[in-house]
Amino acid sequence: MTSPAMHTSPKAKVTTPGDRDIHIERVFAAPRDRVWKAMTDPALVAQWWGRGNKLVIERMEMERGGHWRFVEHTDEGVHGFEGRYREVTPKDRIVSTFEWDGMPGHVIVNDVTLHDLGDGRTKVVTHSLFHTTEERDGMLHSGMEGGLNQSYEALDALLTRM
Amino acid sequence: MTSPAMHTSPKAKVTTPGDRDIHIERVFAAPRDRVWKAMTDPALVAQWWGRGNKLVIERMEMERGGHWRFVEHTDEGVHGFEGRYREVTPKDRIVSTFEWDGMPGHVIVNDVTLHDLGDGRTKVVTHSLFHTTEERDGMLHSGMEGGLNQSYEALDALLTRM
Repeated sequence: MTSPAMHTSPKAKVTTPGDRDIHIERVFAAPRDRVWKAMTDPALVAQWWGRGNKLVIERMEMERGGHWRFVEHTDEGVHGFEGRYREVTPKDRIVSTFEWDGMPGHVIVNDVTLHDLGDGRTKVVTHSLFHTTEERDGMLHSGMEGGLNQSYEALDALLTRM
Repeated sequence: MTSPAMHTSPKAKVTTPGDRDIHIERVFAAPRDRVWKAMTDPALVAQWWGRGNKLVIERMEMERGGHWRFVEHTDEGVHGFEGRYREVTPKDRIVSTFEWDGMPGHVIVNDVTLHDLGDGRTKVVTHSLFHTTEERDGMLHSGMEGGLNQSYEALDALLTRM
C-alpha cells in the first residue's frame, strides 16, 4: 500500500552555507501542531524516522539534558543512533546531538525549527553542525539525502493519516 | 598527608593553536605503562580525576563505541560528565567525547596521546576540539586550567604511590 502523498512529495532542499554544516528545508502539508506531535511522540516517530524499516525507540527523554537512542532494523543489518537534547521548546525548536554507532564519538549538532507558513503548512528547517569538514562531507556522500527524503515521505504519509 | 610530588608539580602547558581547540602538554615522572594504567583503571581514575573530590565512575567501557560517565561530588554540588570512546589504543591513545551535564549537547572531542620520553618520564598530550569558538572560550574561562592542574597533581601523587 502506498499513500497518495508518496507520489507528490517535494524533495528536501539541502545546502551547505559553511564548510562544516548542512542546511535542510522541507515544507509539510500539515499544521505546526501536528508536525510537532509527529516529531516528538515516540509512537509516531517510530512510524517515519526509520523510512519504513522497523525502528526501536530505546530512549527518548525529550527535555534539556535527556538522552535519545533509536535502533533501526534494515535488511542489511541493525543500526543504532543516539544523542542528547540540548534544547526542547514545544512546537518551535529541538536542538540535539546525533551520532551513529558506526562512527562513535563523531557528533553532529542538529538544530531543528518548525515554521508555521500561515496556510496550514509547516516548514521544517534543520541546521546541522559537524566538528570537521571531513565529517560533514562524509555525511553528504553517505546517501543521507536519499534517506532523508525517504523519511520525510514517510512523515508526509503519517501526517495525512493523523 | 601531602605527597612530596605535590610541591614540585609542573603546570600543564595550555595553548590554543586554532580558534576551536585547546592543546595541553604535561610531563609525568613515571613510565608510560604506569601512566596508562592510572588513566584507564577505573579504581585508579577515581583517585585523581576528581581533584580530591569523591568521584563515582558509573560507566567506563574503554573500547571503541563504549560509553563513560563520571559523577563528581564537590562541596558545591554534584556534577556529571559523560561521553563515548572513539578510539582506544593501549598505552598510546584515547580519543573520546566529553560533555558536562550543565551544558548538555555541547560536545568536545578529546584526543589524548602518551609519549615515552625515554628517561622514565611520559608526556601526555591532549588536543581538544570544540564545535564553536564560543564553547572553546567558555571552557578556557571556566577555571578549566586550575582544575586540570589539580587533577594532574593528584595524578602525580597517585603515580608516586603506585
